[in-house]
Amino acid sequence: MSSERKLRYAMVGGGNGAFIGAVHRKAMALDGQFELVAGALSSSPERARASGTALGLADDRNHGSWQDLLADELRRPLGERIDLVSIVTPNHVHHPVALAFVQAGFHVVCDKPLVHTSAQADELVAAVRQAGTVFGVTYNYTGYPMVREARHLVQSGALGTLRKITVEYNQGWLATAVEEGGGNKQADWRLDPARSGAAGTLGDIGSHAENLAATVTGMEPEWLCADLTAFGAGRRLDDDTQMLLRYASGARGVIVASQVAAGLENDLRLQVSGTLGTITWRQEDPNHLVHSPVDGPRRILTRGSPWLSPSALQAGRIPSGHPEAFIEAFANVYLGVAADVRAHASGQPADPLAADYPRVEDGARGVRFIERVLESAQSERKWTALAGERA
Amino acid sequence: MSSERKLRYAMVGGGNGAFIGAVHRKAMALDGQFELVAGALSSSPERARASGTALGLADDRNHGSWQDLLADELRRPLGERIDLVSIVTPNHVHHPVALAFVQAGFHVVCDKPLVHTSAQADELVAAVRQAGTVFGVTYNYTGYPMVREARHLVQSGALGTLRKITVEYNQGWLATAVEEGGGNKQADWRLDPARSGAAGTLGDIGSHAENLAATVTGMEPEWLCADLTAFGAGRRLDDDTQMLLRYASGARGVIVASQVAAGLENDLRLQVSGTLGTITWRQEDPNHLVHSPVDGPRRILTRGSPWLSPSALQAGRIPSGHPEAFIEAFANVYLGVAADVRAHASGQPADPLAADYPRVEDGARGVRFIERVLESAQSERKWTALAGERA
Amino acid sequence: MSSERKLRYAMVGGGNGAFIGAVHRKAMALDGQFELVAGALSSSPERARASGTALGLADDRNHGSWQDLLADELRRPLGERIDLVSIVTPNHVHHPVALAFVQAGFHVVCDKPLVHTSAQADELVAAVRQAGTVFGVTYNYTGYPMVREARHLVQSGALGTLRKITVEYNQGWLATAVEEGGGNKQADWRLDPARSGAAGTLGDIGSHAENLAATVTGMEPEWLCADLTAFGAGRRLDDDTQMLLRYASGARGVIVASQVAAGLENDLRLQVSGTLGTITWRQEDPNHLVHSPVDGPRRILTRGSPWLSPSALQAGRIPSGHPEAFIEAFANVYLGVAADVRAHASGQPADPLAADYPRVEDGARGVRFIERVLESAQSERKWTALAGERA
Amino acid sequence: MSSERKLRYAMVGGGNGAFIGAVHRKAMALDGQFELVAGALSSSPERARASGTALGLADDRNHGSWQDLLADELRRPLGERIDLVSIVTPNHVHHPVALAFVQAGFHVVCDKPLVHTSAQADELVAAVRQAGTVFGVTYNYTGYPMVREARHLVQSGALGTLRKITVEYNQGWLATAVEEGGGNKQADWRLDPARSGAAGTLGDIGSHAENLAATVTGMEPEWLCADLTAFGAGRRLDDDTQMLLRYASGARGVIVASQVAAGLENDLRLQVSGTLGTITWRQEDPNHLVHSPVDGPRRILTRGSPWLSPSALQAGRIPSGHPEAFIEAFANVYLGVAADVRAHASGQPADPLAADYPRVEDGARGVRFIERVLESAQSERKWTALAGERA
Repeated sequence: MSSERKLRYAMVGGGNGAFIGAVHRKAMALDGQFELVAGALSSSPERARASGTALGLADDRNHGSWQDLLADELRRPLGERIDLVSIVTPNHVHHPVALAFVQAGFHVVCDKPLVHTSAQADELVAAVRQAGTVFGVTYNYTGYPMVREARHLVQSGALGTLRKITVEYNQGWLATAVEEGGGNKQADWRLDPARSGAAGTLGDIGSHAENLAATVTGMEPEWLCADLTAFGAGRRLDDDTQMLLRYASGARGVIVASQVAAGLENDLRLQVSGTLGTITWRQEDPNHLVHSPVDGPRRILTRGSPWLSPSALQAGRIPSGHPEAFIEAFANVYLGVAADVRAHASGQPADPLAADYPRVEDGARGVRFIERVLESAQSERKWTALAGERA
Repeated sequence: MSSERKLRYAMVGGGNGAFIGAVHRKAMALDGQFELVAGALSSSPERARASGTALGLADDRNHGSWQDLLADELRRPLGERIDLVSIVTPNHVHHPVALAFVQAGFHVVCDKPLVHTSAQADELVAAVRQAGTVFGVTYNYTGYPMVREARHLVQSGALGTLRKITVEYNQGWLATAVEEGGGNKQADWRLDPARSGAAGTLGDIGSHAENLAATVTGMEPEWLCADLTAFGAGRRLDDDTQMLLRYASGARGVIVASQVAAGLENDLRLQVSGTLGTITWRQEDPNHLVHSPVDGPRRILTRGSPWLSPSALQAGRIPSGHPEAFIEAFANVYLGVAADVRAHASGQPADPLAADYPRVEDGARGVRFIERVLESAQSERKWTALAGERA
Repeated sequence: MSSERKLRYAMVGGGNGAFIGAVHRKAMALDGQFELVAGALSSSPERARASGTALGLADDRNHGSWQDLLADELRRPLGERIDLVSIVTPNHVHHPVALAFVQAGFHVVCDKPLVHTSAQADELVAAVRQAGTVFGVTYNYTGYPMVREARHLVQSGALGTLRKITVEYNQGWLATAVEEGGGNKQADWRLDPARSGAAGTLGDIGSHAENLAATVTGMEPEWLCADLTAFGAGRRLDDDTQMLLRYASGARGVIVASQVAAGLENDLRLQVSGTLGTITWRQEDPNHLVHSPVDGPRRILTRGSPWLSPSALQAGRIPSGHPEAFIEAFANVYLGVAADVRAHASGQPADPLAADYPRVEDGARGVRFIERVLESAQSERKWTALAGERA
Repeated sequence: MSSERKLRYAMVGGGNGAFIGAVHRKAMALDGQFELVAGALSSSPERARASGTALGLADDRNHGSWQDLLADELRRPLGERIDLVSIVTPNHVHHPVALAFVQAGFHVVCDKPLVHTSAQADELVAAVRQAGTVFGVTYNYTGYPMVREARHLVQSGALGTLRKITVEYNQGWLATAVEEGGGNKQADWRLDPARSGAAGTLGDIGSHAENLAATVTGMEPEWLCADLTAFGAGRRLDDDTQMLLRYASGARGVIVASQVAAGLENDLRLQVSGTLGTITWRQEDPNHLVHSPVDGPRRILTRGSPWLSPSALQAGRIPSGHPEAFIEAFANVYLGVAADVRAHASGQPADPLAADYPRVEDGARGVRFIERVLESAQSERKWTALAGERA
């Protein structure tokens, strides 16, 4: 917490009934770094305004569309404008909103997957580079302190040369026909290609799996071989995906992401093996990281322990044994953005330890990954190249 | 989150470097129900004001003593005054501050253990009853949704007649002489009888154990037999406590609370057995409650699952599998207080499902428990009565 | 245990220093159904005889080669002959020994993988069918009671229509160059194509994974897409394998088997999801089976609980909570063989509940699986057919 | 396994339908060190003989009473006699049988609790010392390799000075009135003071808890304060016990043993804290020992790992990750006895690493413990002395 003023933000999307909008707001509220001052909280003007009122927005900053929000902000004097916008809409809205706010010079946080196509992603990356603004993507699982410790163990060489990366992400919420009847708002748009994009489960949680693997290992696969399936009757998008990965270094990997694993909740697991040991992390038990060295007993690293790396320690709030969880991890992404926004304002370079968050380039890499997986899934060739360097 | 205005609060204690003050503030910030507007954040006027400035308090509401804070509040017009005060000082300060604010008509949240003596506790209970104000005590572990589910399983009869209650609360932070050198602020006051009271570990975490058992079972022991030990060289207060319990119903129980369990973190466990089954909960894995019925397979109940009780469900924010943790549980206590404060303001009775928080009577019961445990520990008699009904 | 006489067995392989031979002997000893009366315990005649002496074999039944053993048995009167032979040699010896004993009318238990080629496997299946003898293959993991409960849950429809099968089998013992210096007898032959066959890790533990999936689901994949890697410098056989599976029913699956997962021990996991729920089993915690139904809380099924299926219950010896483990599971395979051998002797059909063990056809299917995986690994085509029906 | 001849044993008790007799026989069979050659398997002569026949005993060594067994053995030439007798009867039969066989010069293994009174125990200890024979007591939990590792960590100083010992042993099998109707043979005698002794749950599993704590810590409590309860209607013996312990060193402890923990199975847990760390072991997960040092991450020690102590390593049979369990631990007690019996026969001192098993003095200490707990439970004094040094 800091004596500096709170950062002012606007939210686009996330109105009444939206799950993820409330999570973003709680995450931004937690550490006292942000205050919500404006919004365009729904694509429906009435619902947008009703939502804004419920959240206590002043009438003149409670807009019926993101275009109105942007126009209004640009009319305001600099000292009154928002510092950043948080975009938590369905996927198809990300691109126009993000691009417009970046081009207008605002800092942006955008949900994942970033946009629908890598052309859009490249355009957005270029815009951010040109504007010189801060752009965060809420790959929230990378905000967990023990994920940062995992990344540290890889970077420090504790695992030796990496050989095997496995990410499994199983949920069960699409095991039944939840989309029938229209009562499930999430299912409604996530299963609709027009709003969700060409990827279903792949875009929703497969993209988290890709980002988690890339963040922890620092590597992007060179080749992939994917199989996508839509188990639910009538579904136009995949609800199950599985793929093999080959890395340029010779490492191998597997990603499994399914939303038809009936009865499972949010079972995201990461396992990375190198020549010197293996680490395992499970999102449903996020305060622990299991490290199995090749030459000694298994170690259970817990969030908050003094022997963790600085990057894991700075991502925690309370002593070990007092668990932190999903919202705190989400908040860590926002704390990273806040540090970068404040550094930007001060004209100083940000402390890299503090400004630790997924950036627009990570989002673009995720979009390219989705495209290549879709290409592989339709191909009879075994291996599809995932070209391009990691930004 | 609500369209009603945020509740204004002042904080007494919790200045720079205090662990628990920051937790309270984050918990109050999380759900957007409270805003910090005033404070007397330390017993040292300079540190108090520096802390308030760092937290963004206006100068005229940033006080050097709680007496100044109270006097200032009483001078302000009603519409500007704080709604409640949150007291997060060392224990010895609880009584005068709480009593003064209650008597002045303010709602209060106070950390545990409530006060030093049951005479103080009774005085405070009487004052609260006379003032008709809201008074919450932050036995924060009762805010965990799965503790509420445990309470529900007992109340619903799913466990049958209770027979055995075991609470173990093991920490290791006093295993070494952390108090030497004076650099550990927590150890500094917690091991000082003048500030901590006559109980050390007993008051700090034994009181959580008592409250957790009482909250879940709805029963208070009738008799207890305690053994307190100070393992640390030169310590004047217990750092380890163990006791046997007998309930009027015939049930039996054990409480173990230790802060010299070297290497352990915050290992609070509750186990309750009845004629029909056993439930087990571990604070370090708070999103799960294990229910072992006598006549079927073990069940793992997870926070957020649709088949939980209303009281467990309303204490959660996000879907099952997305863990919530310590700060969220803490925030649930404050949400209960908020519901009661708002009901009080509206003149309507509070929804009991919403206004679910430990009250001044729970705090008073905890003080009496501590007194009786201390009495038992010094007695050669096996059983010491824990007289008095649960409020 | 039974009043019938113990079954007499000979062992081929498994002399001094061999890991798996001792496991077979302990498993056969455990339940008092078998006695070792003869052997050819090594390919080295001297070591064979020294090993037999150490095991208490009579001199005239302690042979220097399996050919001598077989010839000697055929010279003995029927009432003195062995009932069965247990073959625990390196893989390349399985085929000639098994074929010779089957053709001579003996019952056989043989380690996996059964033989090197599917031509050999087909020959052996035909020989067994012609001889009408009992032939067990020690896919020992299927002997675990909770694996049998898993199979029961699938068969009973508790999981609905299967959609997803995942088996991961990670070990770390080949993470380092254990084969250097020649001191590791296991590594010595397992990494030698002449003795191990064309598959390394694939044959050793990948074949267990295949068998476990097939046993529990009752299904064999129709198509597979595999990637094999030899990470260890100079290795001629794979030490890591990963593959995607497609079933005729539309189900999907993944098998990962690695022996370079440094620091891991024997981490075999099975997960099967259907429309109605998911089951998860871990070999390192073998007494529990996790069942996550789509419409209620997770259930932890424990070995020995009265609500298990008959097939799981009959595979246990002691009450729930008293764990059984690897050797007991191994012994269950032998108990199944014993039941069938006794039924064979009595001329009665065996009780299928008792005669529950992997048969020569399962072994043959495993050999064909290995061949097809090797074919896929060398192919640029994405999908390789795994032709043939399950026996 | 050894080239030496198998040790010949007789069994007293353990006939058809007895749970524990079969466990003893399987444990003795597992490692090929013992063969059953004689018996008096029930107090009912007919059932004894029927059981012996079912187990394959020769008619002339299948007796209707232990007196007949003993007389017959003494008539036989030395080279034909049993090496030892295993006594697995209800408790009240232990004393006469054990005493008679010891006095006749036979080695003995006897189930726990050893005898009913400390006078009987002292008599038996004296008799064993006079006879110079081997006498093992099947406190089987001490046979678990990771319990031996726990003992090693204490002995090696890895935990520093011990401060706190907690053993909890919860079962649920007496939660319901299983004794009604007489169909439960275990409940039948265990709840009958004439056969079980003055202690119920205390004698059955409380004695295991005492022995486990004493074995691992090498300390016996100096004082205890106990509370025993019979929850089941009409029960004459305790089905729940809880007690506080004080050690001469200043250490503190708690034992909880209950058989009315409805829904629990065999939930035995040990936790020992010293100045340098804490170890935790759970019988239901016996291959792991959790070691939490005060100054580094938690370590999970697994059975079979090369970095374990010699005493833990020699108690295992198969590599880490391949679990061993209850029967193997039981067998380890018998392997210790076997080593001592063979040493005795050879006239050489036994290798202490091999001859690792609970002795008659451990059994006598357990009897004295039970007596003192019963005394404490009936006393109004807080502390009852548990006099006497550990043998």
